[in-house]
Amino acid sequence: MAPRYATDGPGILAAARRLEGRVHRTPVHTSRALDAMLGLRLAFKCENVQRGGSFKVRGALNALLKMPPDQRARGVLAHSSGNFAQGLAIAAAELGVAATIVMPADAPAVKQAAVRGYGAQVVRCAPTLKSRVDTVAALAQQSGATVVSPSDHPDVIEGQGTCGLELLAQVPELDTVVVPLGGGGLLSGIALACRHVAPHVTVIGAEPEGADDAARSRAAGRRLDHPPEGPDTICDGLRTVLGQYTWPVVRDCVHHVVRVPDAATRRAMRLLMERTKLVVEPSAAIGLAALLTENGPVPPGRRVGVVLSGGNLDLARLPSLLGVERPARRSE
Amino acid sequence: MAPRYATDGPGILAAARRLEGRVHRTPVHTSRALDAMLGLRLAFKCENVQRGGSFKVRGALNALLKMPPDQRARGVLAHSSGNFAQGLAIAAAELGVAATIVMPADAPAVKQAAVRGYGAQVVRCAPTLKSRVDTVAALAQQSGATVVSPSDHPDVIEGQGTCGLELLAQVPELDTVVVPLGGGGLLSGIALACRHVAPHVTVIGAEPEGADDAARSRAAGRRLDHPPEGPDTICDGLRTVLGQYTWPVVRDCVHHVVRVPDAATRRAMRLLMERTKLVVEPSAAIGLAALLTENGPVPPGRRVGVVLSGGNLDLARLPSLLGVERPARRSE
Repeated sequence: MAPRYATDGPGILAAARRLEGRVHRTPVHTSRALDAMLGLRLAFKCENVQRGGSFKVRGALNALLKMPPDQRARGVLAHSSGNFAQGLAIAAAELGVAATIVMPADAPAVKQAAVRGYGAQVVRCAPTLKSRVDTVAALAQQSGATVVSPSDHPDVIEGQGTCGLELLAQVPELDTVVVPLGGGGLLSGIALACRHVAPHVTVIGAEPEGADDAARSRAAGRRLDHPPEGPDTICDGLRTVLGQYTWPVVRDCVHHVVRVPDAATRRAMRLLMERTKLVVEPSAAIGLAALLTENGPVPPGRRVGVVLSGGNLDLARLPSLLGVERPARRSE
Repeated sequence: MAPRYATDGPGILAAARRLEGRVHRTPVHTSRALDAMLGLRLAFKCENVQRGGSFKVRGALNALLKMPPDQRARGVLAHSSGNFAQGLAIAAAELGVAATIVMPADAPAVKQAAVRGYGAQVVRCAPTLKSRVDTVAALAQQSGATVVSPSDHPDVIEGQGTCGLELLAQVPELDTVVVPLGGGGLLSGIALACRHVAPHVTVIGAEPEGADDAARSRAAGRRLDHPPEGPDTICDGLRTVLGQYTWPVVRDCVHHVVRVPDAATRRAMRLLMERTKLVVEPSAAIGLAALLTENGPVPPGRRVGVVLSGGNLDLARLPSLLGVERPARRSE
């Protein structure tokens, strides 16, 4: 009997109908210069211009739309200092659901303000995983609110999969897709979408060398955690490990997992800004970075979808990310 | 008798047919966040993703396509250290025309390389206007090549006008358009396009406070030069003055010219990166900057097209342009 996964093609197709008109059908950009440089035909799926600046609103909204009314009425709860916080806040506001986001006290003030701007309540906790988890658990017990996982839930995976369906519709001759890999929600959703709609498409996950639990888990045949010293990468959105729902999909339905050094991700960020004029966060540039290595994972000439998963970047990080910290020659 | 200008609506419509398939029909982006902030409905016309990274290829290609074959065979010549160099090089390569670009010796190596990459010949000159002009004149005499103006020629203005036609077709309910103003080629073309196709549209030019020859010329009723100390602005694409063909159009067919301080342009660049995830050069951010002033030139609720004219930015300038020169707290 074939193994069963968190969701399937029909589930993702239903999610796409559910989300229609509520999320942007994000554009696909191309670049002759990058095509020439890499010998590939690239299609950049611009989730960096999605509502809230990343794909996360897809899964959050799908999860909320599938909740029974009485459950929704008790509100939702999550811990996130990043894109999921904004995605869930937007989804909750859209549906009139009360949302509480637990954020570490050292999260940038601008991110906390953005989440509050969408109408969610922000509860601050100490900047440790334990404090996050304890705070969420205590709040859930108090309020009866449902805790929504940023990546490891069937409804979330299903919602993220709609990004893959769109890409397949927008670039019908696609033969490869490269997806950032952290908690694995986006990659799992897209892999399951391809498996159903376009099984000939090669699905590649790109994860940071310094947060390579997926590559190590696939090699070991079982789900592994990060080493005790934790992940080490500039890709702040990809520091999470695979979960119970995403692991089987990433194990079975993904063709390659490429470990990407941060140096390649920096170069990819720079190329994307110079050549496509798009601002992406490091976690989103990693897909192009995976293709930049000398023996890239994709044979020449392929039509490759590259998912630019988000664009929420603290501009104060830009100089060091791009390696342009020294002042320019010309005075501004 | 009505005054006659460099070109007219039928001329621009013909240029649009001429350029079809040769230049990108660039996308229009929107931003709910910026709309809410400004109380306007903005439509950003993304010429920053045009071929060569700016609108300049439109005018260059139109001028080359209108040249008789024997004139084309003698080649073309221009002086530019900026976007027109790339636009003309691309246009010439497309049509198999020999192109020579005179660039000041201190132009960034990456820009010289980009122009050579498109197949044009680069001739370096001393970094003075006199040296540029003399070098071009000498080369023209030697080779018989045609000198192409970056902005002040009817065929160039006509080509730039196609950007306005596209915007009007993409945003049919448009009632205002804001266009960067330097040499005036883009603004003239768009103003003439609106005058013919959509005369109800208010046309606004945005020029740097430190390069405000258009505002001063309109006030004086005659074309004025920059003061002897020259222009002073971060908008390196807008340091040119109006010419014989662009001046009458900017005088008669443009409703307002807004003088924009560089500080507002920096803020606009930052907002565009944060909110629309688009990389634009300062000369392109000035349109949004014009709308940011407290008593902006546009009444609330209007549907405003904002032309993001180019995205060619030396990333080494970013930290000082964005005011993020101090290292971020977190080490990367």
